[in-house]
Amino acid sequence: MGILETISSPADIKQLDTPALEELAAEIRSFLIEKVSATGGHLGPNLGVVELTLAMHKVFDSPTDPLLFDTGHQSYVHKILTGRRDLFDTLRQKDGLSGYPDRAESPHDWTESSHASAALSYADGLAKAFELGGQAHRHVVALVGDGALTGGMCWEALNNIATGKKRSVIVVVNDNGRSYSPTIGGMAENLAALRLQPVYDKVMESGKNTLGRMGWVGDRTFQLIHGFKEGVKHTVIPHEMFSDLGLKYIGPVDGHDVRQVENALRYAKDYGGPVIVHTMTRKGKGFDPAEQNEADQMHATGVIDPVTGEPIGTSKPGWTKVFSQHLIELANRDDNLVAITAAMAGPTGLTEFAEVHPSRTFDVGIAEQHALTSAAGLALGGYHPVVAVYSTFLNRAFDQTLMDVALLRLGVTIVLDRAGVTGSDGPSHNGMWDLSIMGIVPGIHIAAPRDGARLRRALTRCCAISEGPSVVRFPKGNVPADLPAVREEEDFDVLFEGPTDSGATAGLQKDRPHVLVVNYGALTLQSQAAADAAVEQGYRATVVDPTWVLPCADSLVQLAAQADLVVTVEDNGEHGGAGSVLQRHLNATGVDTPVRHIAIPQQFLAHASRSEVLAELDMDPDAVHERVREWCVQLRES
Amino acid sequence: MGILETISSPADIKQLDTPALEELAAEIRSFLIEKVSATGGHLGPNLGVVELTLAMHKVFDSPTDPLLFDTGHQSYVHKILTGRRDLFDTLRQKDGLSGYPDRAESPHDWTESSHASAALSYADGLAKAFELGGQAHRHVVALVGDGALTGGMCWEALNNIATGKKRSVIVVVNDNGRSYSPTIGGMAENLAALRLQPVYDKVMESGKNTLGRMGWVGDRTFQLIHGFKEGVKHTVIPHEMFSDLGLKYIGPVDGHDVRQVENALRYAKDYGGPVIVHTMTRKGKGFDPAEQNEADQMHATGVIDPVTGEPIGTSKPGWTKVFSQHLIELANRDDNLVAITAAMAGPTGLTEFAEVHPSRTFDVGIAEQHALTSAAGLALGGYHPVVAVYSTFLNRAFDQTLMDVALLRLGVTIVLDRAGVTGSDGPSHNGMWDLSIMGIVPGIHIAAPRDGARLRRALTRCCAISEGPSVVRFPKGNVPADLPAVREEEDFDVLFEGPTDSGATAGLQKDRPHVLVVNYGALTLQSQAAADAAVEQGYRATVVDPTWVLPCADSLVQLAAQADLVVTVEDNGEHGGAGSVLQRHLNATGVDTPVRHIAIPQQFLAHASRSEVLAELDMDPDAVHERVREWCVQLRES
Repeated sequence: MGILETISSPADIKQLDTPALEELAAEIRSFLIEKVSATGGHLGPNLGVVELTLAMHKVFDSPTDPLLFDTGHQSYVHKILTGRRDLFDTLRQKDGLSGYPDRAESPHDWTESSHASAALSYADGLAKAFELGGQAHRHVVALVGDGALTGGMCWEALNNIATGKKRSVIVVVNDNGRSYSPTIGGMAENLAALRLQPVYDKVMESGKNTLGRMGWVGDRTFQLIHGFKEGVKHTVIPHEMFSDLGLKYIGPVDGHDVRQVENALRYAKDYGGPVIVHTMTRKGKGFDPAEQNEADQMHATGVIDPVTGEPIGTSKPGWTKVFSQHLIELANRDDNLVAITAAMAGPTGLTEFAEVHPSRTFDVGIAEQHALTSAAGLALGGYHPVVAVYSTFLNRAFDQTLMDVALLRLGVTIVLDRAGVTGSDGPSHNGMWDLSIMGIVPGIHIAAPRDGARLRRALTRCCAISEGPSVVRFPKGNVPADLPAVREEEDFDVLFEGPTDSGATAGLQKDRPHVLVVNYGALTLQSQAAADAAVEQGYRATVVDPTWVLPCADSLVQLAAQADLVVTVEDNGEHGGAGSVLQRHLNATGVDTPVRHIAIPQQFLAHASRSEVLAELDMDPDAVHERVREWCVQLRES
Repeated sequence: MGILETISSPADIKQLDTPALEELAAEIRSFLIEKVSATGGHLGPNLGVVELTLAMHKVFDSPTDPLLFDTGHQSYVHKILTGRRDLFDTLRQKDGLSGYPDRAESPHDWTESSHASAALSYADGLAKAFELGGQAHRHVVALVGDGALTGGMCWEALNNIATGKKRSVIVVVNDNGRSYSPTIGGMAENLAALRLQPVYDKVMESGKNTLGRMGWVGDRTFQLIHGFKEGVKHTVIPHEMFSDLGLKYIGPVDGHDVRQVENALRYAKDYGGPVIVHTMTRKGKGFDPAEQNEADQMHATGVIDPVTGEPIGTSKPGWTKVFSQHLIELANRDDNLVAITAAMAGPTGLTEFAEVHPSRTFDVGIAEQHALTSAAGLALGGYHPVVAVYSTFLNRAFDQTLMDVALLRLGVTIVLDRAGVTGSDGPSHNGMWDLSIMGIVPGIHIAAPRDGARLRRALTRCCAISEGPSVVRFPKGNVPADLPAVREEEDFDVLFEGPTDSGATAGLQKDRPHVLVVNYGALTLQSQAAADAAVEQGYRATVVDPTWVLPCADSLVQLAAQADLVVTVEDNGEHGGAGSVLQRHLNATGVDTPVRHIAIPQQFLAHASRSEVLAELDMDPDAVHERVREWCVQLRES
């Protein structure tokens, strides 16, 4: 029986000496590899923070001292240590363990923090609250990656944290030189230079554990009081970026030496003010296939072989791949096309683009705001930028899209991957907001293609729009086989017209009341189910797919004017979504045909598979069939 | 005849020697004081950048070299120098000169940049474009305030700018120690400490103009090559925050010594890579009433006396004042109430609150993202934060409101001043987006009170909501006299019921078709006009005011179900606005009453007075009357 099985709460950690903690760290790594291989999840990041998390729980008193995990996917070890070890078989599954901190799971979880760079702001607020409430003895500890430090929120937070001289905020920088991909920017280059200094190597050597080995501490008086002696001078690594803000800096510390981390955290805890503890770690530590994976060190995996790290199961070409290949083709023909990513070149499909067109690819760090406004700058300079980003992360750049791109009528294309329900990453990762916020933007073009062919066509069109922003959105996962259109009109494809049973004549069909189903995006099976239900209820039904949410075609409005019921189908929140766009155009034109929306209600969605979430929302084809059936019945009775 | 009258383009600046430039600076100050006193505008900031702007135009070649003005209200001098001097009598007026850079006005204006901290991101994009296009000889110059540097976008941009070693980006920091109010945070304290150093005083002394006087330059090799000699050692002020990012730093430079600034800019221009030029200025320089104004140094004024600086004309109590006073009352009764501002304590009405409750007031800098997420932290710590912010600036914190406040169901109240059409500041300052983005947020409460009494009531209610975010929005300007409600129902006030002419009996009225007008917010005259038009067309009309946009009361939906036409009236964009919220609730409940919206179309609005803008949009009472009349006619004919 190992040590891990004896750990049921953080109190059990506090009894362990360094050798026991080292043994426990090894057991946790084996546990993580075994469990996450079977479920999928953020393996690499969690392998990198085993010792950091152990030391945090040894030194601090959770939950009295809040431990905050930025980009919360690095909280698995924390979950293991806080009584949730037995739930790891259910990780990221419906009704199972969340892949992020979750206040409903444990009092040790304070936030969700699943969009990067937010943890330091929470920490600042918590520390202010503790000071106000006379609880200044409570420490706030935030673990944040060097990648997340490229995000502007961290800067805003550090600038504030620095002013609270008596607030004990311990910012533990988990510096592995990477976000998803290697961290970029001037700050990253500075950190990299730091790693190359001889004195740093000395720090990282194993050896005796004097306080001096922890490196330099900004406040000389404090050093003297606390008995710093020899060794200090030689380990002075002034990290002025933080000290200029008035923040004490300790580091760098070997983040895989649990005793060294523990000592640094004790020192930080005793200090009583805001302090940075700079730790150096290796993402994927202890799992060869992850350590050897240069692309992302197994940042997030599906189900894999626990020995080789190879994916289990095959996957069909996804939306991302279709986008990726087509963008390269467009850029081969158009020298003015450039691509921008916010530290997500791999997941958004820009890695190959970067190989073919390296000088025309810009990774700006986890900095969506800058991604959009630097795109505006590139457009002012004559280029057409394509910003590829996960749908949910575009939230961070709404103001920039509106004020810096659209107000200046600049040709910038935003490509939104993981739009709609994504599933297992939970409420913060569903791409259910983008149509609502982008629909606000004056002059914007928004495409929601239903298949690969339309994605290519929409992307081509967007890259030719030079007056104002354009958007293409598509979901996570595989592209459905191309759906043949019954016919293509100028502004929309007709996907279905019925009934087509041989017993009915065209004349008879025209006399039936008519349900117009407007399909936006990839939920075509749902649109078909809607039409089927209407036909079964004696209606004539048509499914049209306009691809474009905005601008809203006049011909679509005319079609709606002639219908008896309009049903819109989309994979976005109902507030301000595609259906809402059509509805407001109907209102503005005086078209009063009743409208019903198949869309995501405005609520946060618990983690589960995409299909489970859709079923839960009555948005799977069967449920849509039933809902439309009821609407048809109600309409007939009204 | 002065020098100013001989300046018709930047080329004319290049001929002037230092004494002439100094004379010109004095003339420009007189001109600014005279003109802006008469029109209102951003007087203080522009008096502070006279020499900076002159030196920028002398050294660089606009528009080949783009000159970017962050928070574009500091571009008046630039406008004067680029052929727009004669238009200053029309400043900020309909069809007149914009108060911000405007690409439609001049090729010398590259952006609008009216939300703070964006200029450096534009600069990064432009420099990337110039490098890609083989135009690396073009320099990009961005003027940014020290206040704006507290915004995260600047950090994101600097981190990127630092990587472009051969891109000539000159960041001119206009350090006056203030944004609107004094700049806060660790960075500001560091800058303040810098100002107190003896060596800084030496730099700021008048005297001989050696390069050495410009202070320290990061790259020692470059210093040697360019012949730095004596004096350098004593003026070394290492500004490691920037050099740690890999940015060269020149400064500090006396920003009112035009020759010193010119020399620094020439040096920066020759450097050929990214460089920070740190200049020290005084906001309001040269106008006693501004220099003496400790609160905001006349950041933005209305019409004033050009000698005394006293406001001309009286103003009635505004919405801000009502909020300000009521919040103090609430906080007097509730120790858990705290207030947060993003560098706008004065304009958002928190100055008095800060005087009464200094420990419960937090100014976070121009950092809306951090404002919301640190509020979330304070809420996690047991407090109820009230974040007071201009409506348009909340755009920057949409993601934080959604993911960091609402997802965790935290009690945070957001108070939105300047909601709706604001007018003279132009397209970037109208608060026409907030209902659209806040309506997306699950579980949110949103109030749009129509008068002071309802504002107080709504704020009281919001401060008691502990599960999730709540919002109160109100417009710029004076509060209308309290409108008596005909009667108060549980979920709404009835403001009008008619017709009430003596010739009609109650029974007859009930038989008439019914127009329900739903008033959201302060456009009550418009709502009354809508009802009047309906009555004149033979309809029965009711005006109800629910105060709350969300949640949408069932009783309101039922009322709409019984009407023949619903007209919604609001001061927000039509996409996802209050009317749209009601419409989707009707759709979800199967209520198919025709709906028409009086709302702002999704377009950017040119600067003009609030009433002029509303008239332009057919949203003044007369136009609303006519529009509703037409709708009634159409409805009868359908």
